[in-house]
Amino acid sequence: MTAQDTLARLKARLATINDLDSAQALLGWDQHTYMPRGGLEPRVRQMATLQSLSHGMLASPETEELVGTLEAKRDQLEPLEARLVTVARRDLDQALRLPAELVARKSEATGRCLDAWMEHKPTSGYEAWRPSLEEVFAIVKEEAEALGYSDQPYDALLNRFEPGLPTRRLQAIFSELREGLVPLAREIFARAERVDDSFLHEPFDTDAQWKLTMDLLETMGYDFRHGRQDRSPHPFTTGFGIPDVRVTTRIHERDVRAGLFGSLHEGGHALYEQNINLEFDRGPLAQGSSLGIHESQSRLWENLVGRSRPFWERWFPEMKHRFPAPLEGVGFQRFYEGINRVKPSLIRVEADEVSYSLHVFVRFELELELLSGNLALKDLPGAWNDKMRDTLGVTPANHAEGCMQDMHWADASVGYFPTYALGNLYGVMIFNQAKCELPDLDDQIRSGRLGALTAWLTDKVYRHGRALDPAEVLHGVTGRELSPQPFLAYVREKYSEIYGF
Amino acid sequence: MTAQDTLARLKARLATINDLDSAQALLGWDQHTYMPRGGLEPRVRQMATLQSLSHGMLASPETEELVGTLEAKRDQLEPLEARLVTVARRDLDQALRLPAELVARKSEATGRCLDAWMEHKPTSGYEAWRPSLEEVFAIVKEEAEALGYSDQPYDALLNRFEPGLPTRRLQAIFSELREGLVPLAREIFARAERVDDSFLHEPFDTDAQWKLTMDLLETMGYDFRHGRQDRSPHPFTTGFGIPDVRVTTRIHERDVRAGLFGSLHEGGHALYEQNINLEFDRGPLAQGSSLGIHESQSRLWENLVGRSRPFWERWFPEMKHRFPAPLEGVGFQRFYEGINRVKPSLIRVEADEVSYSLHVFVRFELELELLSGNLALKDLPGAWNDKMRDTLGVTPANHAEGCMQDMHWADASVGYFPTYALGNLYGVMIFNQAKCELPDLDDQIRSGRLGALTAWLTDKVYRHGRALDPAEVLHGVTGRELSPQPFLAYVREKYSEIYGF
Repeated sequence: MTAQDTLARLKARLATINDLDSAQALLGWDQHTYMPRGGLEPRVRQMATLQSLSHGMLASPETEELVGTLEAKRDQLEPLEARLVTVARRDLDQALRLPAELVARKSEATGRCLDAWMEHKPTSGYEAWRPSLEEVFAIVKEEAEALGYSDQPYDALLNRFEPGLPTRRLQAIFSELREGLVPLAREIFARAERVDDSFLHEPFDTDAQWKLTMDLLETMGYDFRHGRQDRSPHPFTTGFGIPDVRVTTRIHERDVRAGLFGSLHEGGHALYEQNINLEFDRGPLAQGSSLGIHESQSRLWENLVGRSRPFWERWFPEMKHRFPAPLEGVGFQRFYEGINRVKPSLIRVEADEVSYSLHVFVRFELELELLSGNLALKDLPGAWNDKMRDTLGVTPANHAEGCMQDMHWADASVGYFPTYALGNLYGVMIFNQAKCELPDLDDQIRSGRLGALTAWLTDKVYRHGRALDPAEVLHGVTGRELSPQPFLAYVREKYSEIYGF
Repeated sequence: MTAQDTLARLKARLATINDLDSAQALLGWDQHTYMPRGGLEPRVRQMATLQSLSHGMLASPETEELVGTLEAKRDQLEPLEARLVTVARRDLDQALRLPAELVARKSEATGRCLDAWMEHKPTSGYEAWRPSLEEVFAIVKEEAEALGYSDQPYDALLNRFEPGLPTRRLQAIFSELREGLVPLAREIFARAERVDDSFLHEPFDTDAQWKLTMDLLETMGYDFRHGRQDRSPHPFTTGFGIPDVRVTTRIHERDVRAGLFGSLHEGGHALYEQNINLEFDRGPLAQGSSLGIHESQSRLWENLVGRSRPFWERWFPEMKHRFPAPLEGVGFQRFYEGINRVKPSLIRVEADEVSYSLHVFVRFELELELLSGNLALKDLPGAWNDKMRDTLGVTPANHAEGCMQDMHWADASVGYFPTYALGNLYGVMIFNQAKCELPDLDDQIRSGRLGALTAWLTDKVYRHGRALDPAEVLHGVTGRELSPQPFLAYVREKYSEIYGF
């Protein structure tokens, strides 16, 4: 069999696996948008079945043989074909290292832990939640050992979400970021009263909000022929192949930011996925390069575009027109400052650009301590509260606002949180480069023309999908390595102007 | 291994297959409700993948061995367990007899033929459609041979939808039905001017129509915790396990009947599926007994309840209240007659209770001739028009209104149409029995209480799912065999009163 024949067989096999994963993604989309409450029990089982079939087809001797054969014939492959084999090997090794028994046990344990989280979060019942969380963390440790690492267990977990970034390097980056961010945040918190965002909590007509979010997606270049927006309690982006990438948002009458920035954020994720090279469809390259790079695009659109002056110079008159009552007497500057208000908060998802990363530090440091055994889960609530006080200067009134606020740990997603902060850093570096290469970008944004930016991002980032690793994406765009300094310079400049220091 | 151990393994295997089928059903539901147009291409492939995996898991040596082992230990099984094995064997044999190659070829051919149908129907381009239809009919003939039959090929096709009913018996039943129906229809058509339904084509507010359809589903006992209603161009019912059974409807501003009777019809299908014994879930018994029995329930709710006097004695005042403008000056009797107007039509889906079965005869007879080779597809349009004229007294102006009106043939669903007419016959027999056993049923319907009827149908029909064959369902309820006479008596009585003869 020629290398091309073998490649065709591998692609067909991966396409079948991808179809199973797409079906599973649709089951998830439905679960969070339209599924009647009573449909949950069969849904959980259906998703577990598809997950297990997909894992079984990937972690199989057949896949291994195809990949192995192609590795031996790598010199007969085109560069993108060789890359496909590399990525397939990476996924295959991850799957092979995780015994089916562990995968099944994890799926059950996270199911139980998520259930318990939903049940006990409202009453802050940490002790009732803890047994299932202990089980999940035990499995996470097992997973790290099974996946393997050279330096420390956390490497194995982080690598799944941000390939090529060792924990030690992440710690150095976060430490540099913290060093710049903490004094800046302190400076701003001391001037908190300078910015008033009370008008954002006036009632904004919810139908008009929905219409606005649709118009914003349209203006970003989101393709509604190949996607749609729906509502869900927690906004998310999901896709079933490159030709069908969907977003959700949430509309709160008394917090217009929820829908506005929710849609811009998810729209950024979706633009990425919609613009991956269509030839990658149904294969392992048809994903974002990493979660950090993915998040860089959601944060770029949400913040670097969506919380910028030029953007609102275009859209503020629209806002006044569409929401005359709550914005009566509110001028441009007050609006711009309001949507950029920095305030220490208890919840990451509502955090501003400055304090957002501080939330991530709290979780990252706790994850390291929990994994190393320096911290026991029974002591987590106290440790959480201490870190929140030290890092953000706030103390949760209860565990629901504290260590029970996120679902990630219940879902065994340890090593995931850092990518949220990495997204901010990648995002600014990429956006700065866009500004260099598109010198009139601000003017374009100011006049509502976002097409050139989307096209530039597609060329530099989106179309490559997983054909480039995150460091390659960043180097390809900026010629540089990841550093927190551009982000720090960006927030210093923006917020010293807003807060006057 | 004990019989119980083997049974547990068979159930687990069938549950996995069922999960794949449920996922495929959700992909279909999404395709017809919310999917963006551009998502079609990957969707078709995803469905084909799930279909092929499901078929492969069923038609496998593993399944065959489990079923074979249990057949040998049948005496150690409870009756419902033995029935599960019987039904599993039936599905297994069907799957084994169809080579994977034929299944794949059929899936591709029907995909092409449906595409061509959608493309050429608007312009009545029968000749452009025909090559792909020839291909499908060739495959249907192959399928019939592969499935096997004792008397004639049509038996093999019909048996998939209506197990236990040979073609010869169906012909005898239809001939008896035709004998009663044709003179009755003629009698009515001659008095066509007695009934005026023009008011039904006035504009009815579409939001109020939607609300009405939701209220009707609620009053039937449709469980919205375990289902939902959405809109789609062609109404349908689908489920992803007994706990999640959904319906769709369509709302036409200038034809209030579309949503009204669409929702009652699909609601009948859904009530059936929602009330199957929950212990059957994820297994082959968790379906309707046959398509004919399924259709009996949609027709029962749509017509025997939903086009009856007592039903509208409850709901007509509501209609007047909700739609004051189009119903101004319309009294109860005129409304009742209007929704029951009998009129020879070109399209089955819009046909009244009397002429509906006549449409089915046309297709059934053509299918028999096409299969036997007495009719070639090149002569189908002429044969269609002749039969429509002879049977219903109407002639299509073009092929879109004629032999291209339905998608069933493009989808290789030959042997399916008869179940639509069988539904009418089963439905009246079952409903007559309900009236005997619930003597105040009319009064209950008149006062809007439908719970006792739903409970009776659940006990007699719904809960048994596929644990009973259609003849067993009918015999269990009525003690009788299938006959067209109760249906004929019903339509004669109802329509002689409306049309005054």
